[in-house]
Amino acid sequence: MPVGSESSARGAAAERIRVSYRLLCGWGADPHSRARDIAFEQTVELPEHCVPAPIRDSVVGRIECVAQVDSQVWTAIISYPASVVSDLGQLVNLLFGNISLKSGVQVFDVELPPSSMSHLTGPSFGVTGLRRLCGVGDGALSCAALKPLGLSTTELAQLCRQFALGGIDIIKDDHSLTDQESAPFRERVAQCQQAVERANRETGGSSRYFPNLPSSWSTFDDNLAYARSVGVTGVLVSPLLIGLDAVRCAAAQGDIALLGHPALSGAFFQPDHGIAPDLLLGKLFRLIGCDGVIYPNVGGRFVLSEGQCTAINGRLREPLGHIRRAFPVPAGGIDMTRVPYWLDRYGPDTIFLVGGSLYSQGDLVAASRILMKALGR
Amino acid sequence: MPVGSESSARGAAAERIRVSYRLLCGWGADPHSRARDIAFEQTVELPEHCVPAPIRDSVVGRIECVAQVDSQVWTAIISYPASVVSDLGQLVNLLFGNISLKSGVQVFDVELPPSSMSHLTGPSFGVTGLRRLCGVGDGALSCAALKPLGLSTTELAQLCRQFALGGIDIIKDDHSLTDQESAPFRERVAQCQQAVERANRETGGSSRYFPNLPSSWSTFDDNLAYARSVGVTGVLVSPLLIGLDAVRCAAAQGDIALLGHPALSGAFFQPDHGIAPDLLLGKLFRLIGCDGVIYPNVGGRFVLSEGQCTAINGRLREPLGHIRRAFPVPAGGIDMTRVPYWLDRYGPDTIFLVGGSLYSQGDLVAASRILMKALGR
Repeated sequence: MPVGSESSARGAAAERIRVSYRLLCGWGADPHSRARDIAFEQTVELPEHCVPAPIRDSVVGRIECVAQVDSQVWTAIISYPASVVSDLGQLVNLLFGNISLKSGVQVFDVELPPSSMSHLTGPSFGVTGLRRLCGVGDGALSCAALKPLGLSTTELAQLCRQFALGGIDIIKDDHSLTDQESAPFRERVAQCQQAVERANRETGGSSRYFPNLPSSWSTFDDNLAYARSVGVTGVLVSPLLIGLDAVRCAAAQGDIALLGHPALSGAFFQPDHGIAPDLLLGKLFRLIGCDGVIYPNVGGRFVLSEGQCTAINGRLREPLGHIRRAFPVPAGGIDMTRVPYWLDRYGPDTIFLVGGSLYSQGDLVAASRILMKALGR
Repeated sequence: MPVGSESSARGAAAERIRVSYRLLCGWGADPHSRARDIAFEQTVELPEHCVPAPIRDSVVGRIECVAQVDSQVWTAIISYPASVVSDLGQLVNLLFGNISLKSGVQVFDVELPPSSMSHLTGPSFGVTGLRRLCGVGDGALSCAALKPLGLSTTELAQLCRQFALGGIDIIKDDHSLTDQESAPFRERVAQCQQAVERANRETGGSSRYFPNLPSSWSTFDDNLAYARSVGVTGVLVSPLLIGLDAVRCAAAQGDIALLGHPALSGAFFQPDHGIAPDLLLGKLFRLIGCDGVIYPNVGGRFVLSEGQCTAINGRLREPLGHIRRAFPVPAGGIDMTRVPYWLDRYGPDTIFLVGGSLYSQGDLVAASRILMKALGR
């Protein structure tokens, strides 16, 4: 059968998506054949001899370079025609779908041509918009989390009030607060939003409440609309729980800020296999529209190194076509006394999310004020 | 502030979710404190002294047992009140959300109480329903994939025809076929479905075409409805690309069979960290409603061991409350000549997905017939 004689994908395809891989090549593995394997696996999923020549030339990934960086570590850059990606799910699939099931492959960069970027609107607020939303022209922003899971709506609203009175910029739900009976979504969102607005009227401040949007397919849009209807201007989302494209669609609505939570992301951060933290949490979360991205800061309860944290910061703020810059939100056990240290290292375009260290103080209004002072505000 | 005095989550909560972990405890790490850390991290995300006593007692995970299994390996079972999980996203979050960002933790089982199971309808067809759909009372089923990406709709429809003439039970799109210009979704679905129906009329067979549902938030439901409107009775979905809850909602519609693809799942399959393959692809994919689950068989192009494959098979078929049994679909480089071997090992409630090995034969009708013969049909 003359397969491959009519396909339209093989024509133009001048624009290419370039993906960078770090390959672990122990025990005499040949990096060139590993790169070749990826180029086929992520496109045609067939042995080379089964692929019609025109498709081999126009659809299969093209190996742009393979270079050794260490005794057993190589990098490879493979480019793919932009036409193979029709949506965000397929982009993620191209990056790591099947090769997730191999070993020793880390994707550490992707460069998208203009045609692919045009589907991705990125943050609708970004650094500038979020600053305007929170009324903070200069200096780093503060974020506190409503916790623990199990508190009633009234109790969570009381926490909101105290953080807002203390001047915290963004007061977000813990990402485990979804729609539990202890504090059902709509009740919680309405009361917490009200508590923050009331405190703002008293202080003249502009603290913002960001409820957690449950990762539920059938209620996601309705919950977002409800939050908006009671005055909410930003929400917390977990892209890997709800699906990256859901977040992209929420961002594209343009009128609500998104703080991305890294739940599940650690699965991708193995030393020799996965997607590099700065690519996933920095570049991809930004591309899908997160205005700020929470990540576990070095020295806290989690595993990222300082280099990885700095790389995430860089990705969120670097020039990226028409895509707005986004805020890094280091978190995961930041001690209040260390905030000046991290502020010095990370710079003012940062949102510092402090949880346990605020709660440990007991008086949340006073603790919040100390944090604001530590931020130089 | 008297936090924790009104919460409703702390009362009843007789029903509990039991999660089993495998903990890597090298270098003098204490497995008990690691289990305790997980119990707090996955619920309250606060240091112990910040958690009000009633919530500590009723929301924080309860360590049911910790046992050593190897010099540096321990298992722990932690139970959580069912009330902390309000939706599927939060269940996945409870299982591995934050602890994904730690290291040396593998979740290998979850037992759900009846109240949690009631939200999960599981496969709407299951083994029995899929057999009826394909008209196969006994014996294993066959599956072929339409590939490669880059073929035109007409070419893909020609492949459909040949596989159907050869008697293949399920002819599915490669999961990289989404909505590319080379073969746009609607055009492809209509023509491939038509080609299979026409071949069925000629042969008297009942081959089924399962198009790949693109992992696109805004078009997912419409694409599903369109497929249904042209007579499609089953689709391929990638739960980790579109989001698990999207698949659950599609399954709950009850009238279309779902074949789950493991794209991205390998991120979770690190030796010492992640979610065990049989839990993710076996139990969870079944719970969300996959009637069949594709996984990379041992000895093919991917990393699973025979033990892991057998465990996935077991999970898909074992009794699980009201949840129907689902088909294992071993794939990823199965050689046709080895099908009898795997049939003998895996048993007849299996769908064998053969890709490259069919294409390598050249004549797809003949190759399909040989495969059917290898299955004893």
